[in-house]
Formats: sequence, C-alpha cells, structure tokens
Amino acid sequence: MAHVQGERLIQMQRRLADFGGRSDGGVSREALSTTELAARQWLCGLCTGALYQWYIDDAANLIVRRHGTDPDLAPVMTGSHIDTQPIGGWLDGAYGVIAGLEVLHALDDAGIQTRRAIEVAIWTNEEGSRFSPGAMGSSAFSDPTRLQSFLAVQDAQGQRFESARNAALQATPTAQRIKLGHPVHAYIEAHIEQGPVMECGGYSLGIVTVIQGVRWYEVTVHGNSAHAGTTPLATREDALLTAATMVSHLGAAAAARHDDALRWTVGRFEVAPGSINTIADRVTFSVDVRHPQESELSAMHALLHRVLEQNQGACTYEVRALMQRAPTAFDAQVLAILESAVLATQAPHCHLGSGAFHDAMYLADCCPTAMLFVPSKKGISHNAAEDTLISDLVEGARALAAALVALADA
Amino acid sequence: MAHVQGERLIQMQRRLADFGGRSDGGVSREALSTTELAARQWLCGLCTGALYQWYIDDAANLIVRRHGTDPDLAPVMTGSHIDTQPIGGWLDGAYGVIAGLEVLHALDDAGIQTRRAIEVAIWTNEEGSRFSPGAMGSSAFSDPTRLQSFLAVQDAQGQRFESARNAALQATPTAQRIKLGHPVHAYIEAHIEQGPVMECGGYSLGIVTVIQGVRWYEVTVHGNSAHAGTTPLATREDALLTAATMVSHLGAAAAARHDDALRWTVGRFEVAPGSINTIADRVTFSVDVRHPQESELSAMHALLHRVLEQNQGACTYEVRALMQRAPTAFDAQVLAILESAVLATQAPHCHLGSGAFHDAMYLADCCPTAMLFVPSKKGISHNAAEDTLISDLVEGARALAAALVALADA
Repeated sequence: MAHVQGERLIQMQRRLADFGGRSDGGVSREALSTTELAARQWLCGLCTGALYQWYIDDAANLIVRRHGTDPDLAPVMTGSHIDTQPIGGWLDGAYGVIAGLEVLHALDDAGIQTRRAIEVAIWTNEEGSRFSPGAMGSSAFSDPTRLQSFLAVQDAQGQRFESARNAALQATPTAQRIKLGHPVHAYIEAHIEQGPVMECGGYSLGIVTVIQGVRWYEVTVHGNSAHAGTTPLATREDALLTAATMVSHLGAAAAARHDDALRWTVGRFEVAPGSINTIADRVTFSVDVRHPQESELSAMHALLHRVLEQNQGACTYEVRALMQRAPTAFDAQVLAILESAVLATQAPHCHLGSGAFHDAMYLADCCPTAMLFVPSKKGISHNAAEDTLISDLVEGARALAAALVALADA
Repeated sequence: MAHVQGERLIQMQRRLADFGGRSDGGVSREALSTTELAARQWLCGLCTGALYQWYIDDAANLIVRRHGTDPDLAPVMTGSHIDTQPIGGWLDGAYGVIAGLEVLHALDDAGIQTRRAIEVAIWTNEEGSRFSPGAMGSSAFSDPTRLQSFLAVQDAQGQRFESARNAALQATPTAQRIKLGHPVHAYIEAHIEQGPVMECGGYSLGIVTVIQGVRWYEVTVHGNSAHAGTTPLATREDALLTAATMVSHLGAAAAARHDDALRWTVGRFEVAPGSINTIADRVTFSVDVRHPQESELSAMHALLHRVLEQNQGACTYEVRALMQRAPTAFDAQVLAILESAVLATQAPHCHLGSGAFHDAMYLADCCPTAMLFVPSKKGISHNAAEDTLISDLVEGARALAAALVALADA
C-alpha cells in the first residue's frame, strides 16, 4: 500500500484520457473504436517483463496477469472498462483499470510476488452506447453462451459487433488468446461513484454493498406520414406528438411516485422521416429504469405499459425489452476484506449502493465480488465535467492494493 | 387543348419518378442532390429545337422558354419544383413541371406560336427539407436580395447551399445563364392538392384562390447531461423530458382551439447526446404553424411562447423564427382566365384554398399569379402512397394549356 505512487497513477490516468480527449475536457472513446484500440495498445506497454502476460478472449476482453507463486490457484481480479459514452468523462471506467495497473506497479516496486496471480481486466463495451446492451464483455465472461447473440448486434452505422471484435483481436498482437470465462478467485472493481452521495457526506472511499437492478426498453410508435400543411389535426396519426405525449406522461408518473431510489430516463428519441413539414410516421425511444428492489422494477414495468396504452391515440406501438438485470448484492467475505483495507487507509468512508451498473454486476455471477467507490464532484458523470479529487483517487488505489494483496495471499 | 396527349404526359411523369424512385413507390430526390441534378439533365433533353432555350439563374432555377412571336413582351410562366421530401411521392411538384412541358409539346403539335413566350420553371429547393427555408429558388426569384442569406445555409451534412448551387450550375452546361428575377407577365402553377377536400367533393380541378400563411420555428431546449442511473429525478435538468412535455402541451393546446383551418406540426426532434443511459442536455425541435388568417398566426405565435415558458421546468430554451409568410390571395384577372379554361374542359371543379405553400406564393409577389389543383387520393402527400387519378392529371394539363395560351396571346 505504501508503494502506491499518486503521481504515477495520475500521469497514467491523464495519458489514457488523451486517447479521445476533447478540448472541453471530455473524452470520446466509444467501444472498440480506433481510438479505444489505440488506447488498448498503449496499455499493453505499461506492464511488461517476466512477471507479466497479456491475454485477450473471444469477447475482446483484454486482461493482464501478474503471475503468482502458485500457478495452480485461480487469480484475483480487478479492472473495469475504458470505453466511454459518445461524450464521457476522463474517469468513468478508466479509473478502475489505471488503479489496478498502479497496484501492479506498486507490487513491482515492493518486490512482492503474491501467492495467487493478480489480473487487471479491461472489459469490452461496458457503456452500451455503441453496441446494446452494455457490459457485453463482462456478461459474456460470466456466461460465455451470451457471446453468440452479441456478435450480430449492429451499431448506428450498421457495423456488427463481431467485426469490431475481430478488429480488436488483430489490433493487440502481443496479447495471447485465452478461453472466455476462466476461473477467478475473487473480483474487486474500483470506480467513481457517478452520483452525489459520497461528496455530500464528505467521504473519500465507499464500500459498495449492492447495485440497483436495471431494465432497458425500446418503444417504437407507428403513425402515418402526411403533409403538415394540408392534413387536418383531427385526422392525423402523428407518431412524434404521440411519442412526446407518452414520454411526458411517463416522466410525470415516475415523479409522482416520490421515490428517491427510482431512476427513470428516456435518453434516445429518433424520428422518421424527421422533416419540418412532414407528420412523422415513426418514432423510436428508449426507457432506462433502475431501482434497488426488484419488486419496484416490476411495478415500473407495469406502469410503462399502462402509460403507453393510455396515450397511443390514433397510433400503434410496440415495446422491446433490451436488457433486464435484477439488483446485485455483493459477497460478504470480499466486502469484509475490502473493509479492513479501507480502514487501513484511515480515509473517511461509507457504505452505499451503486446507482450505475458496472462490470462487477456480471462478475458477481461467477465469483465472489465487491466494489470500491471514490467520490464524483457534484455527482457529475457521462459528461466532460466529470472529476474527482486527486487525493481521493490515490486513497482508492491504496485501499485496492491492500484488498487485492490480502485476497491473493489468502 | 385538344393536342394535350395524356399518354405522353404520364410517360414523362413516370420517367421523372425513376430519378430517386423507391421500391415502395416513393421518390427520394432531395434538392440539388446528384439524383435531382440527373433529373434536371434529362428534362433539358425534352424540349430542344429552334423554338426553345434553356436558362439557369443564380439560385439554380432551371427555366425553359418557348419563344413567342413578340420578343419584347414579358413571358407567361408556369412550372413548379422536382425536389422531394426525404421520402416523397411521385407527383408533388413534379406534376406542375411535367404538365407545363406537355403544354409546350401540345403547342408544337398544334403548330402554334404564341405572342408572348411561355416559360416552364423548375424552382430550386421548394421542400426545405434539405436546406431551410423552403422555396429558396422562387423566393429569390421574386426578391433577388434574399439569395445572399441562402448561400450560407448548410444541410444536415454541413454542405453549404452555395456549393450545392454551384454543382447544379456545372451540371447543366446546355442551359444559358440568366439574371435572377426577370420580368414575368403572369404565372400559373399546377399542383396536386395534397389534401382531402377535392376528392371528398368529387372534383377533378380546383381553382386556388388563397394560400394559407405559414410560420416556421426552431426551439432549442438546454438541460444538463448526467448519468441515468445515479442522478435523482428531482435534481435533473432533462432536456428530452422537458422538450417532450412542451411538444405534448403544444399539441393539446392546438387541438383545444377546435379550428379546422389550423395546422400545427412538430416534425423534427433531435436529441444530444442521444444515448440510452445519459440524460439529454440538448433537444432541438421544429414547429410548423399554418392558417388562412394572419390574426390566427399571431395568436399561435403567442400561444407557442406561453406554452414553452410554462413547461421549461429546470431547463432553458430559445426560439428561432426560421420563416414567416402571410396568407396569399391570388390575382383576380388570372383567376378569371383560369376559370374559363377550367370551364372549357367541362371537368367538375371547385374553388379552394391551399393548405400547403408553393412557389406560386412567392411569384405572387412579383407578377399576377394563380394556381390550379388536381385531387390527391385520400389527401395523402409527402408519402410513397401519394397518387392522383390519371384522368385528373390529364384534365389539369388541358386546363393549364388553355389558360397559358389565353394569357400568352393577350
């Protein structure tokens, strides 16, 4: 823990942010873009030498292993993702990867070789903004049968995930191919909170006990395209007006529940033909619902269908479930080890739930898992203004180091 | 009138629809696209020989003149546009151009040379779906000072109208350059109704006495982009939810006026960043308002601003007026000549107002003008299903021939 170097950590963090870096401080580095592939290549150069081996699997998850003294034991794993939203911040995902690599460097400096190997994973397409659903890499790692359906998914430009995945495999020649979903002893992911709770409470470290459940829907409204100047209002089948009314009522219905734990977002709204003087004949919009309790997610599911039916007017619609994930409670033993590591840093800490979903959500299906948060200034994320105090970033890496070593020597 | 050949008319009409023709029967031929330029070149080949001269002006309006016996007299003009909506029908605009060319062919067959020249104009960018505002060509023709501001307008791909205009000038080498806005004795435009009135009444021909006024607005809503999973509903500045609520309330407020003459449409709704798990920080939507009475347009203007202000919530917004046009009453003398021509066909006819705006709206500012409508099946337009009975298309060309000759020999 003492060998974690804050300056080295921040330098790596800033250099990674240069890949896709924007003048406004944001980062545009979508999953498996040429920008992300260049960043992956740079990362491969950070850990070299006899103790290290890089691997890549069929989901293009990129993993570096620092060998342990006992090759027969399953490795301890940390990591996160380096893909971003179309316009994201410099820390979301990237911090968990860089903090993991800093731990490996600290072990090098300390001349420590742990009993179990320690691995840092860079999971593929966590954001889900280019290829839907998100967290493809980690969900395929925890259940390799999922990969097949992901391969056919296309991005907005019609490129298949499969071809993007193949490009990634070719772009990292130094990484050895490894079978998807190898055994892992335990997984701890460090991440920024992406919410306001820790900053408000004045905490530097957060032990994440649960990730709220999430459901993604795609709603398509079908109307009838006609001339804006000649078609009487009464005879219209206006897909845009109908969809806007649905979204407006959904927002009102969600707010009316006065539930601070509820998250309800429409982030996409696409119109065809999208012409100023033509009545729209098709609108497709997304719905993102999250809650720590599964029962509330089911209630929201029913509410969604009720509101759509009540507001369809002269149009028709269909709803497609894109993704569904129940709340995730983390492993008690890993949480206990993480807690002692956090206490050892003497940094002010708290226990909290995660509002965002993370790769750790899927790792929890295949191995004992927990998460460590550092605060987000003003709770801002998925935004150029996303930031965290450097001292908090360093405390996070120190706690992560202590926890990983404890797990790797157990 | 007797020399108008229905078969030749429909053949030309169908051939023109091949430029940008779609498998569903629709036509995609946006303003000054390579498709439209190819169609223009084909049209240039339809009228050749000693009596004909093609011209193109600084707005890329393409005009064919059939010389009259007295070159000192201002020409009589007809025509329309051949650009379409992103997905339009085969008749909108195109019919007025083809009907005009058929009249010229009929005059050739009849061996008639009129006293005044007769011109058929193909106006640039009437639809306004690629470059806003619409009717750039005809409005610049009636007031050449407007051209300067149009040149800088960009399409969705960032191409300037000026460069598209230049490409059009190069693509029609056979056309002689002519000064924008030459004197015109009178203008009659034939067009499909694009509404249900004539079909419901069983009319084949419609004498258009007025075009309703129109106002185009662009509303931009500014919010704050943040993470969909972590940001409490109460603290959000959600540009998409706010804009959807504005559009929904605008639709309700418009319907509540129970005014059959009112047209109110939101056809564009663009979201940034447009990601499923990011709260939108910007939405831009369009508003298209039309009414035969200027006083009602002013009332709608006030209503728009009131509804936006009442529904802005935690967001900010701005409104930009893209275009404004008062109702247009057509010329009594041209209407009288058109009426006798229509009576001569013995086809059932009516008098009506135009729900759509047309190039004739701007020509009315610089010369005596009127319009002739043929019905639209089910009132459908700006749609692949747009259609008109062939017998009605032919009657329209016959009436147009009689009216143009009467004007040209006056």
